[in-house]
Amino acid sequence: MKFTCSRADLSQSIQTVSKAVSSKNQNPILSGIYIKADNNMLELQATDYEIGIICKVEAEIEEAGNIVLSGKYLQEVIRKLPGKNIEFEYDRQEKTTLIKSGNAKFRLLSMPAEDYPVIHKINSDFSFKIMDNVLYELISRTSFACSNEESRPVFTGCLLELSENQVTMVATDTKRLALQTRNLDNFDGQRKMIIPSKILNEIQRLLLSDIPREVNISYTSNQVSFEFDNTYIASRLIDGQFPDYNRVIPNGFSTRIKLNTEEFRSVVERVALISRTNEYKIAAMEFSTGMLRISSNNPEIGNADESLKAEIDGENISISFNVDFVSDVLKIIDTKEFFINLNNSLSPAAIRLVDDDSFTYIITPVRNTGI
Amino acid sequence: MKFTCSRADLSQSIQTVSKAVSSKNQNPILSGIYIKADNNMLELQATDYEIGIICKVEAEIEEAGNIVLSGKYLQEVIRKLPGKNIEFEYDRQEKTTLIKSGNAKFRLLSMPAEDYPVIHKINSDFSFKIMDNVLYELISRTSFACSNEESRPVFTGCLLELSENQVTMVATDTKRLALQTRNLDNFDGQRKMIIPSKILNEIQRLLLSDIPREVNISYTSNQVSFEFDNTYIASRLIDGQFPDYNRVIPNGFSTRIKLNTEEFRSVVERVALISRTNEYKIAAMEFSTGMLRISSNNPEIGNADESLKAEIDGENISISFNVDFVSDVLKIIDTKEFFINLNNSLSPAAIRLVDDDSFTYIITPVRNTGI
Repeated sequence: MKFTCSRADLSQSIQTVSKAVSSKNQNPILSGIYIKADNNMLELQATDYEIGIICKVEAEIEEAGNIVLSGKYLQEVIRKLPGKNIEFEYDRQEKTTLIKSGNAKFRLLSMPAEDYPVIHKINSDFSFKIMDNVLYELISRTSFACSNEESRPVFTGCLLELSENQVTMVATDTKRLALQTRNLDNFDGQRKMIIPSKILNEIQRLLLSDIPREVNISYTSNQVSFEFDNTYIASRLIDGQFPDYNRVIPNGFSTRIKLNTEEFRSVVERVALISRTNEYKIAAMEFSTGMLRISSNNPEIGNADESLKAEIDGENISISFNVDFVSDVLKIIDTKEFFINLNNSLSPAAIRLVDDDSFTYIITPVRNTGI
Repeated sequence: MKFTCSRADLSQSIQTVSKAVSSKNQNPILSGIYIKADNNMLELQATDYEIGIICKVEAEIEEAGNIVLSGKYLQEVIRKLPGKNIEFEYDRQEKTTLIKSGNAKFRLLSMPAEDYPVIHKINSDFSFKIMDNVLYELISRTSFACSNEESRPVFTGCLLELSENQVTMVATDTKRLALQTRNLDNFDGQRKMIIPSKILNEIQRLLLSDIPREVNISYTSNQVSFEFDNTYIASRLIDGQFPDYNRVIPNGFSTRIKLNTEEFRSVVERVALISRTNEYKIAAMEFSTGMLRISSNNPEIGNADESLKAEIDGENISISFNVDFVSDVLKIIDTKEFFINLNNSLSPAAIRLVDDDSFTYIITPVRNTGI
């Protein structure tokens, strides 16, 4: 095998597929990146059996072939090489690949390409297209609410629900739930699948580009794939029954509060300095006569106490939350103001955006037993 | 105690003294910052018995007094408070300090100020003045060569040597040695002391300001202090005999090589990708007919091989180094070109700067047993 390609293109593709290079010491070949050179195109592959990524890079190919190189060293070497172009040449006898760029020469040991578990693209009639920014928003506004506890796999994934002309993503760790919905043109039918949040987070990182582009999503009963530009990402689906999220969202609220996002965010950041030291990370909120008072207490450290303006529509209420659940949602609120909807001190609250009803965040209060 | 001061000034001073707040769980009061308010001036102190830092901040003092607050929480709270000014008020009954800024109120538990081991400034006739940029350079060009092994304390510090009109700083871990020297006006006499490199590194971080300033250094037989602006830093000295560095520096060299710093740096960075995987981190260098060839090999990963131009004055030589010792010195070389001076493959080499003979770096070669 012998080829020449652009260093920048190759470096970017290696960085992309590296997300799927296995960091566990299961099977040594999974620590490698598979490179196939054929038809003036390189195909890079990496997989850890949970996620598989394929990236294509244009190249001038003198001799077709395939190799597997250590993902770690390949990434480091290509990133630091001096030239604009890179030449690869495989030495069958030595089982090494000579990598040349500028005055620099590296020779990396190659693993046997025939042992690599090559990724086969999903062959499915079920697919739809979605804009990258819409998919980005679906993931960023929900996946943070997933659980990390592998003992309950369903909660480590996001539910992707497709119904007629609508796409919804939902995540919950049973104590809070995030839901984002958007219109979906040209889709007919019904479908639900649970996608591992770890993989969605990797996809999110790859999604944002300057030029809007379409992502093609295909799925079978146990796999889903995302394809855009020269990148193809496949993920297993999580088996299990996602809870009925409609039953979690209250039908109505007796009190609706409008808050300024920036003001609330900086108050929460400060109060969190104390709340984070508590066992239940409690921040107490008192909504009363046009003001919100937030406080927190730890008898061993001290307390925080702050007030800000709040537009209260309904009865006055005192309620306490785990401050992390509040901080988390504040990271994704991008509207100037937002709503907190409440019923009483012990019922779930809903956080919604002003002028954007696509997002709902349900948060269960904490019983504040006081000091 | 009650006072008001600028939040920015206080925040900066807290950040400075925080470097001396103990992170070990030895004595709880050492996790605190001592604040004394008197004569329209705050004095902040922190110490872990190895280093002590005092910072002064102007304040409007309504009632004099002193308190000790948790270094960790004080720093976090002050950094996040919203107002331009901050008010502190100690409540003797509750043993808490109320901190107010804007709409925010914090109440932090105070530790008993009478238990704090207040720092007494060094009272010594021995002192000299040095410009901050000169002290910065003395530290930055030497302390990286210190050892981290606490079992041989002398090598964890830098030797500061004062002789008539000259200051020298030297550091070594026995495998390499860095030496920086500068003129020192108005100093008479002789003096040697070994200062812990950890503390010099903290001082270095505090030293660079836009306006050049003088640092006043005082010393006794077992302590040294650095004073500049509103900051006072005291350190213990390391007991022991520093090796005679003049015996380590070869008298002459048979070969002198001039290299371009940037070119050499990028080649070393790449070759290091392989060298760092070796037991002895070996990078082999061959100086021959106007070229330097650097290579490294690891039979389990691969090899790197690269050449660059070298102005060789003397015989051709092959020599191998621990690549980390080469990378370390490259971080501080700020001249366009530098010299490597050699005698033979097994003798120490010297790295010197072009047009700046204040710096010397001695590096012991590694015996390269080949593959």
